[in-house]
Formats: sequence, C-alpha cells, structure tokens
Amino acid sequence: MPIDIVLDAMGSDKAPEPEIRGAILACRQLDVRVHLTGPEDLLRPKLREALKAYARGERLPVFISQASEWINMDDKAAQAVRSKRDSSMRVGLKMVREGRAAGFVTAGNTGAAMATAKMVLGSLSGVDRPALATIVPTTTGRPSLLLDVGANVDSDPENLVQFAVMGHVYAKNVLRIPNPRLGLLSIGEEDGKGNSLTRDTLPLLRELKGINFIGNVEGRDLFNGHADVIVCDGFVGNVALKTCEGTAKLLTVSLKESLKSTVTSQVGALLSRKAFADFKKRLDYSEYGGAILLGVRGVSIVGHGSSNERAIMNGIRVAAEFAQAEVNQGIETALSAR
Amino acid sequence: MPIDIVLDAMGSDKAPEPEIRGAILACRQLDVRVHLTGPEDLLRPKLREALKAYARGERLPVFISQASEWINMDDKAAQAVRSKRDSSMRVGLKMVREGRAAGFVTAGNTGAAMATAKMVLGSLSGVDRPALATIVPTTTGRPSLLLDVGANVDSDPENLVQFAVMGHVYAKNVLRIPNPRLGLLSIGEEDGKGNSLTRDTLPLLRELKGINFIGNVEGRDLFNGHADVIVCDGFVGNVALKTCEGTAKLLTVSLKESLKSTVTSQVGALLSRKAFADFKKRLDYSEYGGAILLGVRGVSIVGHGSSNERAIMNGIRVAAEFAQAEVNQGIETALSAR
Repeated sequence: MPIDIVLDAMGSDKAPEPEIRGAILACRQLDVRVHLTGPEDLLRPKLREALKAYARGERLPVFISQASEWINMDDKAAQAVRSKRDSSMRVGLKMVREGRAAGFVTAGNTGAAMATAKMVLGSLSGVDRPALATIVPTTTGRPSLLLDVGANVDSDPENLVQFAVMGHVYAKNVLRIPNPRLGLLSIGEEDGKGNSLTRDTLPLLRELKGINFIGNVEGRDLFNGHADVIVCDGFVGNVALKTCEGTAKLLTVSLKESLKSTVTSQVGALLSRKAFADFKKRLDYSEYGGAILLGVRGVSIVGHGSSNERAIMNGIRVAAEFAQAEVNQGIETALSAR
Repeated sequence: MPIDIVLDAMGSDKAPEPEIRGAILACRQLDVRVHLTGPEDLLRPKLREALKAYARGERLPVFISQASEWINMDDKAAQAVRSKRDSSMRVGLKMVREGRAAGFVTAGNTGAAMATAKMVLGSLSGVDRPALATIVPTTTGRPSLLLDVGANVDSDPENLVQFAVMGHVYAKNVLRIPNPRLGLLSIGEEDGKGNSLTRDTLPLLRELKGINFIGNVEGRDLFNGHADVIVCDGFVGNVALKTCEGTAKLLTVSLKESLKSTVTSQVGALLSRKAFADFKKRLDYSEYGGAILLGVRGVSIVGHGSSNERAIMNGIRVAAEFAQAEVNQGIETALSAR
C-alpha cells in the first residue's frame, strides 16, 4: 500500500519547481502518494505542466493541499512561525499530526521547520529537546549518522544522552545497522579528553544499557566509519558540518586550478571526467535526502535550500523509510527503559 | 645577522632524522643557526652522517645542546613535564628564556610542549591563557589564521577577546596583512546566532578598538578567505581542524576509487599526475610549518608528529619570522591599551 508523504512545495530556493518535479520522480520510483502544500492557484498549473512534460500525462498520485502563505529563507524563524499561521509548513505538519500523512518533507528555512514541527507535533515522551541528525558519507562506503547538527546549542549531558538513544534507534531501524557503534565527538580518544560537556557526558553514555558505546571519537573520525552514530552539541555539530562543506569547496577549487595549469593536465582531466562525475555523486548531499528531525511526535525531514528534484525525491524516500521503521515508538521505549 | 633557533631533535614520530635534515635544510635556505636539543651521543654521529650526505661536508651552523631525556607522543603531558626535568623540550625552552635562542620548534607531544612552554616561559602580561593558532589555506590563495585550535577547552568570552587581539597582532606583524579582518566562528552570520559563549563574546569584540571585527563567520568560511583571523574556543577549533583533515581524506580516497574504475580514468589520472602533486602541495600542512603558541613570553612552534624535513624547515622559518616581527611586545601593548 502506498504511503502518504506531505511535501512543502514552497520551501527550496527555487520553489516550487524542484518540489513538483521531485514529487513526480518520487511517485514513479517509490510506493508513495505525495501531497504538495502551498497556494493551489500557483501550484495547479505548474503541476499540470510538469506532469505533461515529465510524466507524459501519466496519472500519478500527486495532490495539492491548500496553504495561503509560506515562510522564506530570510524570515526570522520564531516570528514567521507565529505570524504565518497558514504557512505551507504548518499545513503540512498538521496533516502529519492528524494522521493524513505519514511524514513531512521541506527544503525550506531550517529554523522555522524545526520550530513548527516542535509546536505542531510536540515532543516524544522522554525527549527534552528534539535534535537534527544528518547522514554523512564515509570512506568505508557505509554512512554514519551525526547529531545534533544545529537544533540545540548549549546542550547539557542529559540532552546528549537522549540524542545518543535517538540516533541508536534510527541507525538500527532505518539504516539497518545491527548493534550500531556510538561515538562521542571530542578532541582525543582517551576518556579524560574533551571539554566539561563531553567529560560529564561520557560516564552517562557508558552506563546506557543496550547501546554499543565505543567512547570518544575525533573530527577526523566523522568520515572514516569508526562509529555508526556520533553525538555532539548542536553548535559543534553545525560547525563540523559546515567545515566539511568548506573543505570540500577548497579541495575542489584547488584541484581545478591545478588541473588547468598544464595541457597534459587538461587532457587528463578530460579523460577522467566520468570519474569526477562519479566522485561528485558519491559525495553529493542530494543523495542523502536532508536532515532528520528526531524526537518529535511524527516524521519530519529538512532538506538543503538548494535541493534539486533528486534531493527532494530522496527526502521523500527518507521520510517514507523513517515512517515505516517505527522509529518513534522505539525511541520512547528505549528512553523509558533507562 | 643569523637568528638562533632551538629545535627539539627528539619530537617527531621518526625523530631525530627529520629534525636533523630539516635543520640542515633550514641553514642552507634561511639566515639561521639551529641548536638541536637531545642526547648528544645519539645525535652527534647522525648529524655528522647527514652533513656528509646532504650538505656534502659543507660547514653549516647546526649545533647540539645536550638533553638526556625526551617526551614521547603517548606520555601524559602533565606527568611528563613534571618527571622529565632534562627533556629536550625543556632544555630548548630554557635556552629561549635565557635569550640564547630567539625561538623554539618541536614536532613532539603538543600537550607537553604547551605545558612546558607555559611553565618555562610564562605568559605575556595581560594574557590569561595562551592559545594555539594555525594557518589555514584558503581558496583565495591568501592564508587565514585560526585560533584557538586546542590549547583551551571551555574558554570564556574574555579568553576569546584575548585570542582575537593576539591573532590580530600576529596577522599584522608576521603575515603582513594590513587591517586584518577578524571573524568569530559561529553557526550563522547574524549577531544573535551562536551559543551562549559566542553571543556573550560578540559585543566585547565589537567594542575592541583598532580591530577590524566583521562579525560571525561559519565553518564554511574557514577556507574561503572571508576573514583573516578567526577566533573560537579550543574544543570547537580542534574539532573543526580535524573535521577538515577527515574530509580531505574522504575526498582523496573517493577520488582515487573513482579514478580506478575505468581505463580512461586511469589514463586521465596518469596525465594529470603533476596537477595532483601540485594540488597536494598546495594543501600540505608541511608548507605551513606547524601551530603557533601565542601568549607565552617567547616564541614556540609545534609541528605535526608526522613532520618531514620540509615541515621542520618551515617550522624554523615560522619561528624566525615570529621572533623578528616583535609580536609579543605588540600583544602586550594592544592588551594594555584596552
């Protein structure tokens, strides 16, 4: 039976085109029904056109749910959530709360999406603060899960313990990693290394029953697969994630400049073009579908503002997988068993 | 007139070979005299041999200063500093304190080097906690200075302000950047974004006279040259630096795998080999000479444990530039003028 996913049609930088095409792509490749939220008068003709162009008139289960407003990237999250009461995010998340959809996907304002999800869906029992998790590629080819990447700055040890439990359940149920290895992001492997937050958190993680805690890991371990789940404070996680983006950019620019410098290099670059494309694809965030909001009473995925149709489709896939894997019950059970 | 630099001969993972060769390289390329600290009976024959092999018997100003002990990479810093009272680090730093050398370089245990430097040299007036700074390459080709990268976890706003002043003076006097732009590492550009530390620090940085503070910068700005000096807590800086290492490793591994996948790619890789070498060199930490300890009463450079002779030579160059640029007086003046 197809699963219903609601998609904020007004989220991404180029909305609603990537959303409409991503919804079409998802309906053709996955067993889903997609509900686009946004102004119907704007979306209806564009959807009709896109179905003609990309689905050659094929009947696909893409629907529109009316929302008169939407939140922009530069809107202040707290204010926008309060003032835009009929936003495409809020309408979508209400559909999740009312059981009319199994999950929500947006490529819009991350702060607003988190705030709206917390307000509309509420937190799971035992969760003080929901966290934003992201899948990172590793040299082993098997992805790791990093959380929190920005939902909570100034976390306390109890927050990190809850992040650990949530990450564990997600890695096990959705990523299907048996007995996932949990690491605490710090600045040295020994138990004594770190700041006051990590030093206070480490003994609490050691005490957690049923969780395969492997101790501290370092920034360089984020992408080598030493741990399947890595927990950290949201400030640190966000800095790490953006540092990774910055490094990738620096390496790409430098490599391009080096390749331009001689004729043989240019020929070489030409001959390895397929390899470069393959390389880019392996590291492309759009393959991972966006960040996962863990700890709210529902399924909520937040993609990058620059998401293309492929990223949107993967966001829908991630939402469907999350919804089907009974993650939230698992988290509540695990937290109540502590 | 040549400048005297003292070099811990027993620091790096492969000590003393990279140190001896690095010292020879430095004496041939720079106007320096290098004093190697370590066990003379071990160093003397190796130095004689290296001079024969690499300097063809040329007379070079490389000297040996006796130290009977040395600190290993896996020694606990605090304990090693207390128990090894005649270590090559301590002997070297004493020579700096006594004015017999203008600067100290080691590729050894970072924690022990920082602790010994603080103990032997003491802090500059107005500095509560010395910081470790590192030069990072950027897409503009002009380097930036990042601090603190691990000397102080759990910094307070006053610490960050002092780091800012120290980084400013170093960037101006040594890197010769006029009116260096200072950024505060955070998770969003607006003033309100960040954690409690950065939010409390930001107004203090805005008040600093004579410093070109440009506000918050993000992890992705570390390598794009938006700021010349970037300050952060040592935990965050260390995570960022190691995340950068991890990302570079991931990208290199992925690119190699992609290049191996087809015959044309292999040919392409072969033809672009020079470009890859050039690319690697641009990003090679050994070109930057190591981390700079700012805030102690003297000059102290800490290189990577895996330093090769080129990295050692660059460490000596950085120490000499630091010593000649009157950075420490500049820091004391700037801090007292606040």
